[in-house]
Amino acid sequence: MRFKFPLMAIGLEVVMIVLFALFVQYETSVNTSRNPNETESAAMDVEKTMESYPFFQDVHIMVFAGFGFLMTFLWKYGFSGVGINLLIAALGLQWGTIIQGIFRSHGQKFLIEMKNMIHADFSTVTVLISFGAVLGKTSPVQMLIMTILEITVYAANEYLVFKILWASDTGESMTIHAFGAYFGLAVAGILYRSGLKEKHPNEESVYHSDLFAMIGSLFLWIFWPSFNSATADEAKKQYRAIVNTYFSLAASVVTAYACSSLLESRGKLNMVHIQNATLAGGVAVGTCADMEIPPYYAMIIGSIAGAVSVFGFKFLTPLFTTKLRIHDTCGVHNLHGLPGVIGGLAGIITVALEESDSTKTVSQAAALGSSIATALVGGLITGAILKIPFWAQPPDEDCYDDSVYWEVLCSVKDAYDDYTRQRSAHHMSRCLCAS
Amino acid sequence: MRFKFPLMAIGLEVVMIVLFALFVQYETSVNTSRNPNETESAAMDVEKTMESYPFFQDVHIMVFAGFGFLMTFLWKYGFSGVGINLLIAALGLQWGTIIQGIFRSHGQKFLIEMKNMIHADFSTVTVLISFGAVLGKTSPVQMLIMTILEITVYAANEYLVFKILWASDTGESMTIHAFGAYFGLAVAGILYRSGLKEKHPNEESVYHSDLFAMIGSLFLWIFWPSFNSATADEAKKQYRAIVNTYFSLAASVVTAYACSSLLESRGKLNMVHIQNATLAGGVAVGTCADMEIPPYYAMIIGSIAGAVSVFGFKFLTPLFTTKLRIHDTCGVHNLHGLPGVIGGLAGIITVALEESDSTKTVSQAAALGSSIATALVGGLITGAILKIPFWAQPPDEDCYDDSVYWEVLCSVKDAYDDYTRQRSAHHMSRCLCAS
Amino acid sequence: MRFKFPLMAIGLEVVMIVLFALFVQYETSVNTSRNPNETESAAMDVEKTMESYPFFQDVHIMVFAGFGFLMTFLWKYGFSGVGINLLIAALGLQWGTIIQGIFRSHGQKFLIEMKNMIHADFSTVTVLISFGAVLGKTSPVQMLIMTILEITVYAANEYLVFKILWASDTGESMTIHAFGAYFGLAVAGILYRSGLKEKHPNEESVYHSDLFAMIGSLFLWIFWPSFNSATADEAKKQYRAIVNTYFSLAASVVTAYACSSLLESRGKLNMVHIQNATLAGGVAVGTCADMEIPPYYAMIIGSIAGAVSVFGFKFLTPLFTTKLRIHDTCGVHNLHGLPGVIGGLAGIITVALEESDSTKTVSQAAALGSSIATALVGGLITGAILKIPFWAQPPDEDCYDDSVYWEVLCSVKDAYDDYTRQRSAHHMSRCLCAS
Repeated sequence: MRFKFPLMAIGLEVVMIVLFALFVQYETSVNTSRNPNETESAAMDVEKTMESYPFFQDVHIMVFAGFGFLMTFLWKYGFSGVGINLLIAALGLQWGTIIQGIFRSHGQKFLIEMKNMIHADFSTVTVLISFGAVLGKTSPVQMLIMTILEITVYAANEYLVFKILWASDTGESMTIHAFGAYFGLAVAGILYRSGLKEKHPNEESVYHSDLFAMIGSLFLWIFWPSFNSATADEAKKQYRAIVNTYFSLAASVVTAYACSSLLESRGKLNMVHIQNATLAGGVAVGTCADMEIPPYYAMIIGSIAGAVSVFGFKFLTPLFTTKLRIHDTCGVHNLHGLPGVIGGLAGIITVALEESDSTKTVSQAAALGSSIATALVGGLITGAILKIPFWAQPPDEDCYDDSVYWEVLCSVKDAYDDYTRQRSAHHMSRCLCAS
Repeated sequence: MRFKFPLMAIGLEVVMIVLFALFVQYETSVNTSRNPNETESAAMDVEKTMESYPFFQDVHIMVFAGFGFLMTFLWKYGFSGVGINLLIAALGLQWGTIIQGIFRSHGQKFLIEMKNMIHADFSTVTVLISFGAVLGKTSPVQMLIMTILEITVYAANEYLVFKILWASDTGESMTIHAFGAYFGLAVAGILYRSGLKEKHPNEESVYHSDLFAMIGSLFLWIFWPSFNSATADEAKKQYRAIVNTYFSLAASVVTAYACSSLLESRGKLNMVHIQNATLAGGVAVGTCADMEIPPYYAMIIGSIAGAVSVFGFKFLTPLFTTKLRIHDTCGVHNLHGLPGVIGGLAGIITVALEESDSTKTVSQAAALGSSIATALVGGLITGAILKIPFWAQPPDEDCYDDSVYWEVLCSVKDAYDDYTRQRSAHHMSRCLCAS
Repeated sequence: MRFKFPLMAIGLEVVMIVLFALFVQYETSVNTSRNPNETESAAMDVEKTMESYPFFQDVHIMVFAGFGFLMTFLWKYGFSGVGINLLIAALGLQWGTIIQGIFRSHGQKFLIEMKNMIHADFSTVTVLISFGAVLGKTSPVQMLIMTILEITVYAANEYLVFKILWASDTGESMTIHAFGAYFGLAVAGILYRSGLKEKHPNEESVYHSDLFAMIGSLFLWIFWPSFNSATADEAKKQYRAIVNTYFSLAASVVTAYACSSLLESRGKLNMVHIQNATLAGGVAVGTCADMEIPPYYAMIIGSIAGAVSVFGFKFLTPLFTTKLRIHDTCGVHNLHGLPGVIGGLAGIITVALEESDSTKTVSQAAALGSSIATALVGGLITGAILKIPFWAQPPDEDCYDDSVYWEVLCSVKDAYDDYTRQRSAHHMSRCLCAS
């Protein structure tokens, strides 16, 4: 890390500033030039765009606190979980603003509206999902590179889906969640380390790390209705997206708890399932959340997604590791991949039932196919670039360990040693476990 | 838990989906049938209802993050605190939507508006309060049953208070807080275990569990003005509810700190008081928050509530356990019960001073009486049902212990033991530290 | 603490209630007296003021959860960090409402509008910043006194800056951040303890305390755009303040990470830098956030602030302790002081470039000078008052230790005792950490 990371980060920030100077149109001047009675019209625009500000803030919480804390579940990798999440998102929202703006304006200068800011936050989510797949096995330098590359591919696919295919995907089940998951899985496949075939001792949670992760999980859960409705273009659709997401999420909680208990030994609940599968309803209802579906339909989607997600954690993730040599640290395939595909399929079915025009259905199917295909191709190429042994990758034994990239002062071992000497095992077990 | 829990959870979710299909009117069709120029009028409704969305989100944060983390203060029961809170709320909001809707529509189909969603979140709060009274001594199966029963009784009492007595209770001090507390106390009384007469060693907090609980406490504190104003029916009342709640809360913080220091040995502060009594001002001002009371009156209410709550924790809770055989784990009587009654009384006094018509005062008094009475009766019956020895109750020695219902992988001690066996001291020292 | 603290707290609360009764005009009566068709006009006012409610809530989160958790980074001082933060803010918002109201109404009665509530929250932020400078070395009694004194001085300076100099400072880089930092440094200088010249073993973070602090840091980061735009007086300026703050913050994250890695050994990242310097962009862009600056200009300000802040932590803070005998616990000079001054300077430059009228530029410079000067003078006087040995100050060896002022039941104390017996102070400070 000595110089590679700081130099690359500063270099990227300089590039961002130059690109903003070149491409971001300065609001006032534009309004002056295109409209003589400038103040009036600018005020109108601003008030309209400001209506999306609460939604922007809700999405913002999800990106920074939600995804950040969700990734603190590993007992020795919390600093990286929440810290590299912040770095990815802060760089990504700048690059997302630029690259999405350029796609939409066809290379012309463009203005920053609230919707741009929401879309920029959205673009970072794809990288945060993929980050989950490779969590603990990559360096911050690699994450800077993945941020730039993945957001570029995402912006291209997003443009294709929304501006060429004109498909519907309000909560971006396909374009963000399935895309981010399959991109991350492709990268994880390329970066597979046979040295980590055995379960790594660091790849565990402890009691308090699981509680930190619940902060992230709950803030994601709470604001998911805003995520799925933030970019809906009329109040009615926005409202419908909120209602459907709300009930889909609630249903997925109940089935996730039920299936977790069903599959674990002696009917116990598993924190990994609770942290993740309870959110699957939000992902899966994303594509059709603003369509004319009754709430009970959303609840069916959510119920299925919650159950499928738990089954994925239990059966698919181990299979991926052993058979496909794809090691998915956070199980993003179960939270974003499968539910994203369910969302895409639900969208296709809903459009097929609603619309007499079959081209719309084909569009939806093409959008799902395109999102997965670009994700896989983009992920394979990105993985190949990240595999170049120059990016300060951690050695196998230091994976999932903050102390490689962070100053970590302290140790439990020493504390434990002292206790061992002085206290009975019984007392100790009561004193130490909560720590 | 092996099959009881998952089967009951899945069964309940299926019932919810069926009830939604039967009772929730699908928005678009209704509007079409009752109004020819459908789009116009539907858009109007939607925009009005969307004005409540930020309030809904604030209440949502309180329900899921606020109550959830507030209940993580026990050092070995954090997963259940935040996890079962999520399960109760997710199931409860579905059932609350249905049962409240049926009461209001007199069994007809009904639409989902934002206010329904806020009221559904409110209905879950009663169960979350009662959950606090029995925290650590019940199984998830029992909580599923309590969720359904308590919300049903709540909806009946709410209908009585608001639609028959036409009483005022904007922040629902009586109908939610007093109700939830006395319902929970009644259940706790029936479920009393003489085996837990002595203080259970698990029933303690540790340093970090108290900090997790502060997350919950602070998010409740921050959003309480939204809770008390979310359902106010005009902007002026809503604004007044915000201002009064804001200052009442602030005052209760100062008196709670003062009284905590006054009552503890050597003037120290007690985290239990700080986590709970600082919120008493929000509860106590709930009934009259939107009435024409000046802010200093709200501050007096808050000051009294903060002080009374601390005194309750110090003197009443131990008395309840020993004399009444009611063991109130979280002390909900001090945070919700007493302040809820103070709120009800403040409402009666305010109405008596403001209104010349004495029937209004009688209504307020009847509402307080009804809320407490239905809570006690409902709680006793619910407690009797939960006492049936079939619901996977934890044995006495496993109370307040997550490991009965959750996979708890890592206590530091076990992790350490494993490492000791397998690894060199050097490696271990690097592996263990972060936990 | 035995009686000093509770009696002072109750006394202050009584004073607040009396002042509210005397000075806060009761909304309805005013409207009636000044306008016959009362309902109409009151409804209008209320709706306008309610538009600021989401901004108020965002600022509220920053004050209570943001600053509160940011100050939990010390391993044994988390209760005080988050708890005394709550006490200061709850008392301060009452006093701030009164003293700011009196200044603005010239001693007449005044109404509470949403903007008053935002300004009252703002006033508490100055104390919370100064609290950071003296964290761990003062008693709750001293903090009550500082709250009253600092907010009084702040209100006077704020009145001077905004109502006499008519300077611009929308995010209050000068009037809150620079003011709070220099006030705190002056107090810390007066309260300097030569007994703490050596690094205190308690003045360390542990793994989980750093994660708690990240909760605070992230919520501050997320809502900073609302902070800088909450009091902007027209939609256009508000929007501009949001956009500029958003990109300034993002840029400061990237440079803070880069500089942290550049300055630490072997290119590692330092949690102190990440928790603090990533916010410097929000502070530094505050003064000119609503001016007509293009986003890339905001990004340059943010980039510089992020870098300067990290350099400050690395080089200035140790220098302050050894040379100036000012020990700044949280490094508020690096997060609020330096970036606040950068913000003031950026404001002067922007106004000088934008406005032909040079008196405006002079105003800005005078505002910066006045904010620093009143802070230093106010801080020196406050420090002298707090130095009187009557306010239950902690002895040197108990600094940064919650157990002096809080009931700390479990483990930390015992763990510490065990360590004391066995280990040198040096080793201990590094080992105790995680429990």
